[in-house]
Amino acid sequence: MDEKARKYVDMFRQVKIASAATVDIEGHPHSRIINIMISSDEGMYIVTSKGKPFYEQLVQTGEIALSAMCPECQSLKFTGKVKMVGKEWLEKVFEDNPGMKEVYPGETRMILDAFLIYEGYGEWFDLLHHPINRESFSYGMEEEKAGFQIQDSCFGCGACIKVCPQGCISEGTPCHIQSEHCLQCGACREVCPVEAVLKLHVTVHSQA
Amino acid sequence: MDEKARKYVDMFRQVKIASAATVDIEGHPHSRIINIMISSDEGMYIVTSKGKPFYEQLVQTGEIALSAMCPECQSLKFTGKVKMVGKEWLEKVFEDNPGMKEVYPGETRMILDAFLIYEGYGEWFDLLHHPINRESFSYGMEEEKAGFQIQDSCFGCGACIKVCPQGCISEGTPCHIQSEHCLQCGACREVCPVEAVLKLHVTVHSQA
Repeated sequence: MDEKARKYVDMFRQVKIASAATVDIEGHPHSRIINIMISSDEGMYIVTSKGKPFYEQLVQTGEIALSAMCPECQSLKFTGKVKMVGKEWLEKVFEDNPGMKEVYPGETRMILDAFLIYEGYGEWFDLLHHPINRESFSYGMEEEKAGFQIQDSCFGCGACIKVCPQGCISEGTPCHIQSEHCLQCGACREVCPVEAVLKLHVTVHSQA
Repeated sequence: MDEKARKYVDMFRQVKIASAATVDIEGHPHSRIINIMISSDEGMYIVTSKGKPFYEQLVQTGEIALSAMCPECQSLKFTGKVKMVGKEWLEKVFEDNPGMKEVYPGETRMILDAFLIYEGYGEWFDLLHHPINRESFSYGMEEEKAGFQIQDSCFGCGACIKVCPQGCISEGTPCHIQSEHCLQCGACREVCPVEAVLKLHVTVHSQA
């Protein structure tokens, strides 16, 4: 994991309270509040108990998405893969998270299993300061960025500049989007008379 | 919408900051922080802009899941259906949420669309006080509860009572789970010698 990814993985752990999204066997989305119990160079560790739909969905799909709100109102999001790890991780989780033994006292913790989120990609986003700011990160895989890009077919008419809510497009031929300050709202693409604004989709490449 | 559902829908609006989970066209989960802009007897209103994967996923699937953390550490979760509503809702959203015009000044708001979460089921959960507490709610559909139930084949051995992390099972033939105080961890089901503990799955019935 590179330094940037480690910074955001540690930020998830620091915030601790996150929402975890999963997909059930019929393809419906589900979300619930969880705790990020440990962060390390391997990824993020969470726990859940065998009786919960969350547990079932993690095992069935091997996939999870997270989002969290940082204390100063920046947000984090993440999409990645998850696998169960050994019961020995419960001890470390309970050491680092003292509140857990109130909920699962004594041996009752054995109904829990620990899961490692071992790869994925995410983004930190600050919507409250001007200019708005975003930074993406990934680990265990390479990720190509989402957002919008203005191609060479742009003839510099500036229609996009007028509709950009954040004023993050600068004049030129082609005009240029400052992607780190972009809302990714798509207004520029809607108004471009020559369809020069390309919508980028996140594409991921496993490093394995 | 009944009074109980309205209470929790209003709680989502009051907390305002929620995580929204969706499923993309390939079946992967995604999550991001959003705002609940309006709550009413029709449901919850959110907005997003046309260029975002979130918008695309809402339109493609018509489904959303939410979770949120209340100020006193109770959590909310919700799974439901969503549909786009008219641009006239943007005006109401911007009236009720003054911060929106900083992000989308003037006419730039027209890249947004409003969506109504018109039916679904959810749960409020308090893990921090003892006994832990949960309450479910739904609107636009009827929902049968998840969790665990001890059936008549129980002969009262009490094995489940010993492993319950929350002490929410009382003696009897059959033993009885106080479902509002249950973690839904499934420990009781694992130890029952006669498989008397039934795992309930949420089943929903549309009212339409």
